[in-house]
Amino acid sequence: MATTAVDVKELASSYIFIADMPGLKHSDIKVQVENDNVLKISGERRRDDAVQDGEVKYVRVERSAGKFMRKFNLPANANLDAISAACQDGLLTIIVPKTPPPDIYRPRTFDVNVTGSGC
Amino acid sequence: MATTAVDVKELASSYIFIADMPGLKHSDIKVQVENDNVLKISGERRRDDAVQDGEVKYVRVERSAGKFMRKFNLPANANLDAISAACQDGLLTIIVPKTPPPDIYRPRTFDVNVTGSGC
Repeated sequence: MATTAVDVKELASSYIFIADMPGLKHSDIKVQVENDNVLKISGERRRDDAVQDGEVKYVRVERSAGKFMRKFNLPANANLDAISAACQDGLLTIIVPKTPPPDIYRPRTFDVNVTGSGC
Repeated sequence: MATTAVDVKELASSYIFIADMPGLKHSDIKVQVENDNVLKISGERRRDDAVQDGEVKYVRVERSAGKFMRKFNLPANANLDAISAACQDGLLTIIVPKTPPPDIYRPRTFDVNVTGSGC
């Protein structure tokens, strides 16, 4: 499994997930919502040995490679229908907008007409 | 200091350094050769909070941030004048061509004319 570091930040109107994806294009990454409350990020990071002139010898191997998968529980106010994701410069950014809060309960004070006679 | 994983591979005609630089553009990265034999990669990885709507609260922080610097001794056959570097999809690739090997010593066998008289 490849390691995939993720930051999550909360703004006034959304949650933002930022994941390190060096060397990956948007077509290499899968972003899904499972069971209406889990955000799943998955894919595979491969070592690119496509362009070679003869034998390749790895002198040093520090970069993480292989399949990766991360899951995050989404908060109740996540607007699942408006989630968007973009990948640029090896960084995946997923924006999860918040649903607007329900109307705030305000206790009311008002007069009730009293009708009748004799009092 | 930010962590910066680097792979180094050796091909028949070059050494290739590949460094994870998620979120960085080529203008954020400095590649230098020091003292004719040290390859130095440096820069800074910042958290991008430029686009905000109000207060930002980090719910999760896993991604590495801050300045980074890596140094590698270059082999004697590195062609310093032909080093090239490119950054794409958050991946820095530095190609260090090898200098061609010196002409191979081949012991020669040949005839030497013998001149003179009396023998």
